[in-house]
Amino acid sequence: MTKRKKILISNDDGIHAKGLAALVEIAKKFGDVLVVAPHTSRSGMSTAITVEVPLRLIKYENSSHYVSYSCTGTPVDCIKLAFDKILDTPPDLVLSGINHGSNSSVSVHYSGTMGAAIEGCIHEIPSIGISICDHKPDADFEPMSGFVESIIRETLNNGLPLGTCLNVNAPKGNISGIEAARQGHGRWVNEFEKRIDPQNQDYFWITGYYKNMDNDSNDTDNHVLNTGKISIVPIKIDMTDHLFINQLKNWQW
Amino acid sequence: MTKRKKILISNDDGIHAKGLAALVEIAKKFGDVLVVAPHTSRSGMSTAITVEVPLRLIKYENSSHYVSYSCTGTPVDCIKLAFDKILDTPPDLVLSGINHGSNSSVSVHYSGTMGAAIEGCIHEIPSIGISICDHKPDADFEPMSGFVESIIRETLNNGLPLGTCLNVNAPKGNISGIEAARQGHGRWVNEFEKRIDPQNQDYFWITGYYKNMDNDSNDTDNHVLNTGKISIVPIKIDMTDHLFINQLKNWQW
Repeated sequence: MTKRKKILISNDDGIHAKGLAALVEIAKKFGDVLVVAPHTSRSGMSTAITVEVPLRLIKYENSSHYVSYSCTGTPVDCIKLAFDKILDTPPDLVLSGINHGSNSSVSVHYSGTMGAAIEGCIHEIPSIGISICDHKPDADFEPMSGFVESIIRETLNNGLPLGTCLNVNAPKGNISGIEAARQGHGRWVNEFEKRIDPQNQDYFWITGYYKNMDNDSNDTDNHVLNTGKISIVPIKIDMTDHLFINQLKNWQW
Repeated sequence: MTKRKKILISNDDGIHAKGLAALVEIAKKFGDVLVVAPHTSRSGMSTAITVEVPLRLIKYENSSHYVSYSCTGTPVDCIKLAFDKILDTPPDLVLSGINHGSNSSVSVHYSGTMGAAIEGCIHEIPSIGISICDHKPDADFEPMSGFVESIIRETLNNGLPLGTCLNVNAPKGNISGIEAARQGHGRWVNEFEKRIDPQNQDYFWITGYYKNMDNDSNDTDNHVLNTGKISIVPIKIDMTDHLFINQLKNWQW
C-alpha cells in the first residue's frame, strides 16, 4: 500500500474561493490536505512578502485528513508560514489555485497563484500553480478537473527538477487535451483608467489588455490555450540569463 | 552633441529614502530624471500590482531636468503609471534603488526594487535594479557611486538584450571591483517569530536568515559580494525551463 501523500494548498483568491474548493476536492484523492490561504483576495501579489505588519493565522477546519487556515498575508506568506510554523515535515506537493483568471505569459510575474507555487519550489517541493481563463467567481471547474488530476498524478509519479515548478492554465469550457509550452511573449497595455473623485482629485484603477508580441508562434502557452488545450509551462526560479554573463564580463568598468 | 537621456527611477524604500536620492544624483549626470516612487516603504513587494484599490499620484518636484511623483502603489505600479500616464515617450533607461538591503540570490523574487526593474524590462527598456548590502536608513552610498555610474554608462553604451535586466548588489564599505555572476542558490529559513499580543492571540513577524545552498561555487552573486566586489546578475523575464519542455511532452495524460 502506498503511503498517503501530504499536500499543501494555497491560492490568491482567498480562503472562500470556489477554485480553491475545487482544487481541494481533487487533491483529497491523493492524500491529506493542508490549506493555508489568504483571508481575502490577494490577486496580483506575485511573490510579495509582508514585512511591515505582523501576520495572523486563523484555523478554519480540522478533520482527520483535512486542515485549513486562513492567513492575513500574501500567498507566499501562507506557504512560508505553513513550512515554518504548521508542518512538522515537508509536504509531498504544493498546489496553488485554482485561480479565477489566466496566469499565462508575462502574468506569471504578477500572479499571487504562481507566487505560492514558486515559493513551494524554492522550498524544493514539487509545486504547481493552476488557473482557469475565467475571472467569474462561479467559474466552472468541472471540465478541467480530470485533467488537473492527471497532472497531479504525473507530477507525483515523475517528480520535477529541483528549481522548476509548473504554471498550468486551462481554457474555460470544453478542453481537448494538455500541452507543454513556453511562456508567451507580450505585455499589458493601456493599463490605467483615470477617474475624478468627489473632492475633484485624480485616481487610477488598473485595467488594460494583454498585447501578444509573439508572431504566430505555436509553442507558447497562449497558443495552446487558443487551441482549447491546457497549457503547462515549466518555470525556473533561477532567473539568470546565463548566456549573457560572458558578454557582461567584457564590459569596461 | 549627444541628446540628453531620459531616465525613469523608482525604488521600494519610498520617495524619502536616502538610496533613492543617491541614485538620482548619479542619474542626473546622464540626463533628465523622472522619479515615480512609492509614498512609503513597500519592501518585499516583488512584482506585485494593486488591483483591489485605486492608486494616487502626488507630484513632489518639477524643475527643468527633474520631476518626481510619489505613488500609493507598489514599485511595479509606479513604473506602469509612469509609462501609461506620465511619459509621452518611453525613457532610455529604467533604474530602481538604491535599495537599503541586499537583493542577491533568491531575494530577486521578493524584491520590490527588482520588481520595478523587471517591469521596466517587460516594457523593453534597459533596466537596472541596484542595492547595497546594508539595511540602515543612513547607509553610505559614496563608495559605490562611481561604480554605479560606470554600470549605467556601459548599459547606455551597450544596451541589454530584450527581456534581460540587471540585478546589481554592492557590499557595504570599500569596493574592489565589479563582477558578473549567476543568481546564487539558497533560501530563507526560520522565517517567523511568534509573539503573543495583549489579547493573548498569536501573531507572526517575518524574520529568519539566508541559507546558502551553493557548495563553494565561485560564480554566484553571493560569492562575488563576499570578495568585496559588486555583483551583476543578468535576469530574464522569460522564466521558462526550456530544457524541461521536451520531457513534459513525454508525460502520460
